[in-house]
Amino acid sequence: MDRAVAIFSGGMDSSSLVYMLKQDYGELIMLSFDYGQRHKKEITSAKKLAGYLEENPTGAYTEHRVVNLRTITSMLKGSALTDDVDVPDGHYSEEAARITVVPNRNMIMLGVATAVAVAEEADALYTGVHAGDHFIYPDCRPEFMHHINLAAQAGNESFAKRGFRIEAPFLHMEKSEIAKVGARYGVPWEDTWSCYKGGAIHCGTCPTCVERQEAFYIAGVTDKTKYADAEYWKTVTTVPGVR
Amino acid sequence: MDRAVAIFSGGMDSSSLVYMLKQDYGELIMLSFDYGQRHKKEITSAKKLAGYLEENPTGAYTEHRVVNLRTITSMLKGSALTDDVDVPDGHYSEEAARITVVPNRNMIMLGVATAVAVAEEADALYTGVHAGDHFIYPDCRPEFMHHINLAAQAGNESFAKRGFRIEAPFLHMEKSEIAKVGARYGVPWEDTWSCYKGGAIHCGTCPTCVERQEAFYIAGVTDKTKYADAEYWKTVTTVPGVR
Repeated sequence: MDRAVAIFSGGMDSSSLVYMLKQDYGELIMLSFDYGQRHKKEITSAKKLAGYLEENPTGAYTEHRVVNLRTITSMLKGSALTDDVDVPDGHYSEEAARITVVPNRNMIMLGVATAVAVAEEADALYTGVHAGDHFIYPDCRPEFMHHINLAAQAGNESFAKRGFRIEAPFLHMEKSEIAKVGARYGVPWEDTWSCYKGGAIHCGTCPTCVERQEAFYIAGVTDKTKYADAEYWKTVTTVPGVR
Repeated sequence: MDRAVAIFSGGMDSSSLVYMLKQDYGELIMLSFDYGQRHKKEITSAKKLAGYLEENPTGAYTEHRVVNLRTITSMLKGSALTDDVDVPDGHYSEEAARITVVPNRNMIMLGVATAVAVAEEADALYTGVHAGDHFIYPDCRPEFMHHINLAAQAGNESFAKRGFRIEAPFLHMEKSEIAKVGARYGVPWEDTWSCYKGGAIHCGTCPTCVERQEAFYIAGVTDKTKYADAEYWKTVTTVPGVR
């Protein structure tokens, strides 16, 4: 039976990914990483959505695991995602990225997820990285994905299932296109989590909240998510026709 | 000042590596990984050797960190290095490798070590992988090292220090050649640890003990290590002139 492993953060992109994969595979193992992120609500979201998928009898048999990376990331200081640095408002920028980045995070997560995929004899490992992340995060770019896939294949030769590969089906999509995919597969957006600030509800003003609201607007997808400030993104967006 | 990060297990190869790097760099950060290995004595060895290097005023300023990977590897079952499977005696074989391997171990360790190297703005990350490991462990082969280096560079572009790369200076050396390098830099072999069985002293009979004794013999290097059985390797070796 076809088996996939997917990295699942509980955000828009990876939620769309696992809802899609549930229809494509016989078995699906979803991995969430606890790296001490301040927006730990994304793990709560991941658990909630994983519960929906597990209860749903159609499509893949699903399983959800949370991987504890805190002992590792506690060594790696200087990131607003894990430390007490303020998360900036507005759009992503080089400066914002520098303080919101955990160094080499994708390689670490893909390394662990590849190990799980090899041990489980999975056909493929999926990640929801996408085009919108490229200019900020170098480990979401096609060049990185190309080499890490070849490294994973070379490094597990004769141990991994034949034909094993790392897939990033959203790599060349915009976030609004992913929103359309997720909507098609019935992702309950209000149960996903994107906000970097980790409050009770989405702040609406941090870079990822701005990007999220733009994506739904462009895609024409209904979003029932509650935002502390649901109007701010319209004052900073460059999407035509909003302002 | 030039700064290097090195993966340091406390075995022959990485001990030779860090003793060499101490002479080449201004600063050296040594990383040991605790992945729940049954031969935890290698971490004790790593700490002891790191202590010698830290006390030695010549060469690099050195620092030693132990990274806890146990929460990760506890998910990855089926390895004799971490589980209660018996370690085989004699030479390495495909079968022995299958049960002594932690899936994708090198990618996970290199992923975490790259993160440290990027955060510390190091010039390079070093690993002691070598030619003798190739035929058994696919993640010690040149093809894997080639792609993981390119992935680490692409994935940390503009975050890593300019020119950052992963170096494997022993990649094309035999273990006996590494023994010569280590001897040149004064590695105290009896304080290093190779045995996979994790007893009070080296067993002398497991594949890595056999390989270790062969290497010293071929290199003509004096080895004061105590082995429970110091003669067994001579009965299984294919090194000319021993039997």
